Amino acid sequence: MITSTSNKQVKHMKALLGSAKERTSSGCFAAEGWRMVSETPPARIRTLLLSEHFADSRTLRESGLLEKVPADRVFEVSGRVFDAISDTKTPQGIMAEVEMENYTAEYLLKAENAMLVFLENLQDPGNLGTIVRTAECAGATGIIMSRGTADIYNPKVVRSTMGSLYRMPFAYAEDLQAVIREARQRGIRVYAAHLGASGAYTDQDYTGPSAFLIGNEGRGLTEETAAAADEKILIPMAGQAESLNAAVSAAILLYEAVRQRTLYLK
Amino acid sequence: MITSTSNKQVKHMKALLGSAKERTSSGCFAAEGWRMVSETPPARIRTLLLSEHFADSRTLRESGLLEKVPADRVFEVSGRVFDAISDTKTPQGIMAEVEMENYTAEYLLKAENAMLVFLENLQDPGNLGTIVRTAECAGATGIIMSRGTADIYNPKVVRSTMGSLYRMPFAYAEDLQAVIREARQRGIRVYAAHLGASGAYTDQDYTGPSAFLIGNEGRGLTEETAAAADEKILIPMAGQAESLNAAVSAAILLYEAVRQRTLYLK
Repeated sequence: MITSTSNKQVKHMKALLGSAKERTSSGCFAAEGWRMVSETPPARIRTLLLSEHFADSRTLRESGLLEKVPADRVFEVSGRVFDAISDTKTPQGIMAEVEMENYTAEYLLKAENAMLVFLENLQDPGNLGTIVRTAECAGATGIIMSRGTADIYNPKVVRSTMGSLYRMPFAYAEDLQAVIREARQRGIRVYAAHLGASGAYTDQDYTGPSAFLIGNEGRGLTEETAAAADEKILIPMAGQAESLNAAVSAAILLYEAVRQRTLYLK
Repeated sequence: MITSTSNKQVKHMKALLGSAKERTSSGCFAAEGWRMVSETPPARIRTLLLSEHFADSRTLRESGLLEKVPADRVFEVSGRVFDAISDTKTPQGIMAEVEMENYTAEYLLKAENAMLVFLENLQDPGNLGTIVRTAECAGATGIIMSRGTADIYNPKVVRSTMGSLYRMPFAYAEDLQAVIREARQRGIRVYAAHLGASGAYTDQDYTGPSAFLIGNEGRGLTEETAAAADEKILIPMAGQAESLNAAVSAAILLYEAVRQRTLYLK
């Protein structure tokens, strides 16, 4: 059992939780908590860190997880060590080093009857995680993010996807406007959620290949990016609130596409 | 200027942020940050706490707020004192003691062509705040919550409503099932969002008085409460995620009601 926080594995896992640079250079990220680890495809688990307490737990024993991960990849650490590296307030005692899966924006644009989400500079980890989860539920085919968007492997995002991270294909794009142009050339209609749009989102037809552009929480989409879309669309708002939450906006648009596709494509 | 954290006003404000009991007994809550305070109707501000730094700021001066709040209700405190009571990581230096506004569930059920949200034991403050904000944007007429729902005056909820707290009528109910029965007697159709429902939410007509029941994040609605509704409705989900986020579910249902009402009532 590892009892020192200066152990190599322990230090690496802590760095994966805290540093985007470490994640990028190693091609791995950290998934913490039973919920996330149990949703992780075992083949993508490079190492597994268990607190001595969780290593002994019935949850772990009954799951059969240890039969799927080679023993030399499993490390047991003292409770003190686990707590020292955990990203949560009440550590459960399980954490995995998981290999990233890399898609390219080009690949995501080739999906059949695409339903895509394009995110520009979204900042809040909770919002990003919720969008990944909602996109999976809506049957979206992918998420493409500008470089200025929060890191999807940030532990807060990973947690709030509740496992959808492993099932929803995504990519970061150096140039989101170039992605929009490429999407349009491929026949995908790109819709920009925009407070200044004149037409309601319900007036559009999303039964064909579609992409929804969602902007930053405070500032919305940049004018250049909004202008690159086929259509600006408005989610009507009563009252005096300035805007809807970004994840809520994404959900409303995606589920309107689901509604139309269910009604007209079946 | 107040320089001690044992000052009476300072202690009261700190208690309002941290204690539901203090809020209930005083009939006030604390709203922190410029965004929330500037959205507060000045007549409801009982006291205003300013850090010496914010008291001198251009933001405050140009807002005209100090002309609307009597001088004997404004307290200036040292930066150290403000930081000691703040609920945020980067305190802005302004906080208000705000009088609660009380509605009853009975009153909210009398709204013309009601569009209501009923929440059972919702726990996450961010979800609750987002639902309040989304409900305002959708033009909902009120929110009724079971006693087991998070405290809407918890500072995290207050913040995440982004001001909608002041404009969306809400009430807590001792007995949510009694509220459901009363709503139905008044001709409001009550729809329970339920993973076990057989019919999709898009198959219902929400142009008449409607209420949407949303359950706890992990457990959903209790069976008794779901059974008390007129209809169980399903938000269809592709993929393998267990459920949608509660605020996302509320948004999808409310905006389907908005869509139908815009289409058929105008």
